[in-house]
Amino acid sequence: MTLRVAVIGATGRIGSEAVKAVEAAPDLELVATLDSRSKLETLVESGAQVAVELTHPDAVMRNIDFCVHNGIHVVTGTTGWDDIRLAELDHWLAGAPEIGVLIAPNFSIGAVLAMQFAQQAAKYFETVEVVELHHNNKADAPSGTATRTAQLIAAARDAAGLPRQSDPTTHGLEGARGADVDGVPVHSVRLRGLLAHQEVLLGDTGETLTIRHDSLHHSCFMPGILLGVRKVVAQPGLTLGLEHFLDL
Amino acid sequence: MTLRVAVIGATGRIGSEAVKAVEAAPDLELVATLDSRSKLETLVESGAQVAVELTHPDAVMRNIDFCVHNGIHVVTGTTGWDDIRLAELDHWLAGAPEIGVLIAPNFSIGAVLAMQFAQQAAKYFETVEVVELHHNNKADAPSGTATRTAQLIAAARDAAGLPRQSDPTTHGLEGARGADVDGVPVHSVRLRGLLAHQEVLLGDTGETLTIRHDSLHHSCFMPGILLGVRKVVAQPGLTLGLEHFLDL
Amino acid sequence: MTLRVAVIGATGRIGSEAVKAVEAAPDLELVATLDSRSKLETLVESGAQVAVELTHPDAVMRNIDFCVHNGIHVVTGTTGWDDIRLAELDHWLAGAPEIGVLIAPNFSIGAVLAMQFAQQAAKYFETVEVVELHHNNKADAPSGTATRTAQLIAAARDAAGLPRQSDPTTHGLEGARGADVDGVPVHSVRLRGLLAHQEVLLGDTGETLTIRHDSLHHSCFMPGILLGVRKVVAQPGLTLGLEHFLDL
Amino acid sequence: MTLRVAVIGATGRIGSEAVKAVEAAPDLELVATLDSRSKLETLVESGAQVAVELTHPDAVMRNIDFCVHNGIHVVTGTTGWDDIRLAELDHWLAGAPEIGVLIAPNFSIGAVLAMQFAQQAAKYFETVEVVELHHNNKADAPSGTATRTAQLIAAARDAAGLPRQSDPTTHGLEGARGADVDGVPVHSVRLRGLLAHQEVLLGDTGETLTIRHDSLHHSCFMPGILLGVRKVVAQPGLTLGLEHFLDL
Repeated sequence: MTLRVAVIGATGRIGSEAVKAVEAAPDLELVATLDSRSKLETLVESGAQVAVELTHPDAVMRNIDFCVHNGIHVVTGTTGWDDIRLAELDHWLAGAPEIGVLIAPNFSIGAVLAMQFAQQAAKYFETVEVVELHHNNKADAPSGTATRTAQLIAAARDAAGLPRQSDPTTHGLEGARGADVDGVPVHSVRLRGLLAHQEVLLGDTGETLTIRHDSLHHSCFMPGILLGVRKVVAQPGLTLGLEHFLDL
Repeated sequence: MTLRVAVIGATGRIGSEAVKAVEAAPDLELVATLDSRSKLETLVESGAQVAVELTHPDAVMRNIDFCVHNGIHVVTGTTGWDDIRLAELDHWLAGAPEIGVLIAPNFSIGAVLAMQFAQQAAKYFETVEVVELHHNNKADAPSGTATRTAQLIAAARDAAGLPRQSDPTTHGLEGARGADVDGVPVHSVRLRGLLAHQEVLLGDTGETLTIRHDSLHHSCFMPGILLGVRKVVAQPGLTLGLEHFLDL
Repeated sequence: MTLRVAVIGATGRIGSEAVKAVEAAPDLELVATLDSRSKLETLVESGAQVAVELTHPDAVMRNIDFCVHNGIHVVTGTTGWDDIRLAELDHWLAGAPEIGVLIAPNFSIGAVLAMQFAQQAAKYFETVEVVELHHNNKADAPSGTATRTAQLIAAARDAAGLPRQSDPTTHGLEGARGADVDGVPVHSVRLRGLLAHQEVLLGDTGETLTIRHDSLHHSCFMPGILLGVRKVVAQPGLTLGLEHFLDL
Repeated sequence: MTLRVAVIGATGRIGSEAVKAVEAAPDLELVATLDSRSKLETLVESGAQVAVELTHPDAVMRNIDFCVHNGIHVVTGTTGWDDIRLAELDHWLAGAPEIGVLIAPNFSIGAVLAMQFAQQAAKYFETVEVVELHHNNKADAPSGTATRTAQLIAAARDAAGLPRQSDPTTHGLEGARGADVDGVPVHSVRLRGLLAHQEVLLGDTGETLTIRHDSLHHSCFMPGILLGVRKVVAQPGLTLGLEHFLDL
């Protein structure tokens, strides 16, 4: 029995990759592809069981509203979620208790695992820093992922009762020791030729542990999207973050 | 309330580090240090609650026998354990149900975490290889840790129903693709200047995850030994591997 | 004054990138693009001063013959050169003493520099190994670049009177210590998600030096092709290898 | 014929390593070891041809003065050189035209090569950054070596007519993009367990080149000291920097 899948936002950069990925998966059947001019009714007509939603904040609420009310599970990577939107989604799901929705800020399984491992390891090391490396068109520094990683590490240290790490620097140049995210130094490298890379470096007496994630192509989101599709049908309600579908 | 700790094998390379580490820990009190000429009765006289045992296979059974029968918990890194020895230890512990013994093949928390993470990640990546790098006096290749890591990865893949990874190589030089450990390629680099380092490289569509552990000094075993001392008093019976004392 | 450039093989994977790269360079003017059905006379009619030749062994001799006899410099990355072909090219160039031809097996400046640096450093380190990492569709192991790098390193060690490095391994698994290329161990990792990466690791007392090259996209050949175009016009005769156009 | 070598500052951390290194070298003979209470006349009595001077700024001028006037070549790693001191040394050497003195701020051959290679590669890459990683007792950030490396890179870019690299960051946290050393971003990581490590990352279209140096033990200075000893006897006058004795 294959699972019937639709892709909403099928002509976008990630959406068009998702179309190919669903087509290539033997246990999935691509039944509909929608772009911004498509009618949502296509989803019902096609018999889709799961919709992969990859559009933008302007469209996502309407799309998910339709899916939930028509008994279609949703996997979305669209951003722009705030408390009001999440409350509205909860309300919809209350009326459709069998339907699952996965909202994933990051579909890269490697990135999600790297964040989990960094969090788990954090309490066992006296010192920890984050180095993220991206192409030289990136406007924000640190990256959202690096900031989130540092926050999770800081929270894990706090929960374990570890003190803030002290900076040994007494003289130096401004900026050398990176940005301070909840007490965790974060360094942002911008290099032509790179895509998206991140290292968490943990050090204690006589040893270091390094957890590195490299995204070399945006197709890296596909295994995570497919995992989401396969799992969401058995996970009613709202799931925030792909990590909840990983079996760690 | 401090915990009273004795070190057996206190003049060895790791043992002498352990003496210093216990002395430096505010919650531990070093009450006895034994070398090969010391009498085991010293342990009882000193009031030791936990013994750190760092000797060799010839001495370890006698040492643990004495500790268990005198109500002293044990943390040991000595090797040479086989089924017969483990059965004997189980028999002793059956008669001392409140006593805990930790046998740890590796006290480096970083190395243990790296192995755990590699195992957890293994099922989410189509391909995985291990590269271990050591100083150029090492006689065995691959290292014991690398072999063990590869076996754990292979077992995790099997359990998840992943197929053996296929080697794309159709022509090449012998040895280029490394040693085959249960289907996981393992590569051993030997370089003057290095100590002990290991990388697990996992790759799937468009991304890689790398888990690297570097031992830069044999003092790296100390945080793990101290963790073992603190946890073993609350963990009666036999514990095999420091990973069981980590909260992951 | 811009330089007038033609691209032969303009519809291939690298050729089409070259077309874009020439167009984007302010000091170069793209005057002709040829594919397998184009007439070579186009080159003359377009007034091309340099031809970038990116075809295959079947076509390259005819293309270069035409260029040299019509006063057009050539930059080629096509393979298949042997002594007979090189002798023929020498003969053509003897009759056109003002014309330059660059044959480059690798247009990646990073890869060429990495090889040069590895060679230069080789004599200062007791031990050296090569690790190359590629996508898991690569049929040969080690890669051609890794084999060539190891040969250059071995030659540099020989020239400096260094002994063969001895392998400390007395027991282990077959393949763990890599392929032996003139006494230099070479390890080949194959991972889904990777493209083309290489590390040369050099180690001596208390330190290591690592030279790593990462190709993340085949556009990495463009800076080298453009460099070749700019330099070949002032370098009459045959030049074998982009390294001769680098100012090191 | 062996070379007769004395070590001044033989009881210091590096000095005592130097004593062992000279003793272990088959082509060198250790003829004298001096500490702060030794008489410099010992150097003459021992017949030393080269003195390895590893003391401090207070003592170095007197030591070198004595050596130069007694026909003994000098290899020194002591710091504190300014224009006045260098002028004085030049004056001494003018009167002893056959004598060589090497002043080396860094005896690690790996570190010196890494700096050279970074400089040579700099002009071929649009973007470059430096990441240095040290133990968490280091008071200055960036390290002196990293600052010097960035300056050399910036000078090489200037000399080649490359523009300053532009920072793509339009919003972010202070410090994320590192310290600015002549337009080259430098990031300083401080981690327990590390010693001294540095990476120069160069990136251009589709590729990156990374030059990494790891010091894992202070014995890493020995090969450079021995190289200095062997070369200084044939290099009259003042040599500033070990790189001038490397054959690149």
